[in-house]
Amino acid sequence: MAETTPNHTQCVSGWAARDSSGEVTPFVFMRRENGADDVTIKVLYCGMCHTDLHYIRNDWGITIYPVVPGHEITGIITKVGGNVSNFKVGDRVGVGCLAASCLKCDLCKNSEENYCEQLQFTYNGIFWDGSITYGGYSKMLVADKRYVVHVPENLPLDKAAPLLCAGITVFGPMKQHNMLQAGKKLGVVGLGGLGHIAIKFAKAFGLHMTVISTSPSKEKEAKERLGADNFIVSTDPKQMKANVRSLDYIIDTVSAVHSLGPILELLKIKGTLAIVGAPDKPMELPSFPLIFGKRTVSGSIIGSIKETQEMLDLCGKYNITCEIELVTPDYINKALDRLAKNDVRYRFVLDVASESKL
Amino acid sequence: MAETTPNHTQCVSGWAARDSSGEVTPFVFMRRENGADDVTIKVLYCGMCHTDLHYIRNDWGITIYPVVPGHEITGIITKVGGNVSNFKVGDRVGVGCLAASCLKCDLCKNSEENYCEQLQFTYNGIFWDGSITYGGYSKMLVADKRYVVHVPENLPLDKAAPLLCAGITVFGPMKQHNMLQAGKKLGVVGLGGLGHIAIKFAKAFGLHMTVISTSPSKEKEAKERLGADNFIVSTDPKQMKANVRSLDYIIDTVSAVHSLGPILELLKIKGTLAIVGAPDKPMELPSFPLIFGKRTVSGSIIGSIKETQEMLDLCGKYNITCEIELVTPDYINKALDRLAKNDVRYRFVLDVASESKL
Repeated sequence: MAETTPNHTQCVSGWAARDSSGEVTPFVFMRRENGADDVTIKVLYCGMCHTDLHYIRNDWGITIYPVVPGHEITGIITKVGGNVSNFKVGDRVGVGCLAASCLKCDLCKNSEENYCEQLQFTYNGIFWDGSITYGGYSKMLVADKRYVVHVPENLPLDKAAPLLCAGITVFGPMKQHNMLQAGKKLGVVGLGGLGHIAIKFAKAFGLHMTVISTSPSKEKEAKERLGADNFIVSTDPKQMKANVRSLDYIIDTVSAVHSLGPILELLKIKGTLAIVGAPDKPMELPSFPLIFGKRTVSGSIIGSIKETQEMLDLCGKYNITCEIELVTPDYINKALDRLAKNDVRYRFVLDVASESKL
Repeated sequence: MAETTPNHTQCVSGWAARDSSGEVTPFVFMRRENGADDVTIKVLYCGMCHTDLHYIRNDWGITIYPVVPGHEITGIITKVGGNVSNFKVGDRVGVGCLAASCLKCDLCKNSEENYCEQLQFTYNGIFWDGSITYGGYSKMLVADKRYVVHVPENLPLDKAAPLLCAGITVFGPMKQHNMLQAGKKLGVVGLGGLGHIAIKFAKAFGLHMTVISTSPSKEKEAKERLGADNFIVSTDPKQMKANVRSLDYIIDTVSAVHSLGPILELLKIKGTLAIVGAPDKPMELPSFPLIFGKRTVSGSIIGSIKETQEMLDLCGKYNITCEIELVTPDYINKALDRLAKNDVRYRFVLDVASESKL
């Protein structure tokens, strides 16, 4: 890589995993100079997504070590390039999963660059200059202006950070399938980082909201803290049966392997199940509930930059933020352990700029 | 059942399976008198659907013996009830899978009665009067007018018979997903009774047609006899890879258990995979090709009566009929054996009125 990245002259402190053991330790590395199309961001907060854990542990076999995770980034712009007109120094901004795409294909031209074949992610990707991308577990980020969004003034940057991935991941299918209609009945499978934001969107738009979870212990909080209207324990066949054909849409956020059959049965005829989780083994899809219900299983991955900005603007309008547990960098490994056990309500956010030692 | 069916006074000759051994033998049974909303049909032809085999052998554990199979029925009306105005004696008609539905629910009112919760099938169903329904492997049928369709004059009744199930089963998703647009690229998985009709529809509407099959031996015929433009051997990873992201839609007609992953990869971004087969075990659905492709897997079962009539009218207009092997009733068991091995191009049709002995 060395020859292709002579302009990587900025020294940055961050945190990286060096191997699949899963431990994250301080890491100093180089970022590119701020180019004409770039903005430099002082990273303030970075959400800790389950995907970080997959990369850290090389669950998908594609990790390039050392990996600096983090794609739920918020911060303040400290520098802008000569071609940048829509951002200025001091702006409150966010960067999500996207670092680059081809900008030429129909998907890029149609603001669907998150499906571009040449898409590169904010970390563990290969940037246009051939360098490996490093994410938001770091003090500073240089990002192409085309992959940066504005964070509305009324949203605190720590609680807004997880919107950049968890938020857009659930908002994407909500928009695609026109779910955000008052009175419609939405279910969400899994009450974690993604699920709890789905509830917030749904309640802001007047939907009837059902949580489908394996954990009966989450019912009280789902209803009282988050405003869910109904709670189904998915391991209880009686409860599942009592709710057959009751929901217009379901968003399935679960990344553990599971059968889609019982979930599909909860949908009304012609209902849509939106998959946003990424189990590393295939899910079971029985034909009967699919065909006899004229039902649809649809997948999507995050959202485009345009959709992400639209989502953030809506969050500003409806005052939607994430429920987070703010942690300092010296807590990263402990947080990752707890994340692996889903022991967080509902998202760890790294206080990157805190005074804790590197 | 006896008390609830005092009006079952008409003696009919047919063919039934008595147990799960799979053998079909002559069977004489009673049908109801022709009621005010009924038409009586002299059955001329009946297609032999794979579903017949499942019921005959009780593969789904729901068969009520004796079962008289057959739901791809064509014939001539011999009697009409007092409330019947849209059919008259001598009309060429068809009856598919539907025998009854509630007529009151939103689905029934919206011409989607094929998803009515109280739907009853043409055989192995329970009719309004409590009697078990018997299908088209029989010389005569009494059917409620609401579940009968007209067969256009230019379509031969033998080659039209499989349209009543195989035809509408593939036409349903074609209509639902607006597939029938000239220039679009459609794939069909499995080249059997359903698949070959999908090709005929696609070619009539100017689509580019790809067959995806495990049988390389079918390529020549698929292209030369049916007009397919492309043929992919699904067990050949090279061919599959060469066709990644190439198709707008795929209709999967295969009833054997299979993984949907490699098939999904053939779809363009935002492509739709329509499932119409009914494997008795769950299919494998990997998340990655679904979410990274923003793809959709959608299911449907046959079609409504309104859609079936629409399809038949289009078949009349475009002269679409099925490729069949016409067999006499004494060949039923042999035909079922061959059907189990997919040894038919492309549908057996029973010549019910032929002179072969019962």
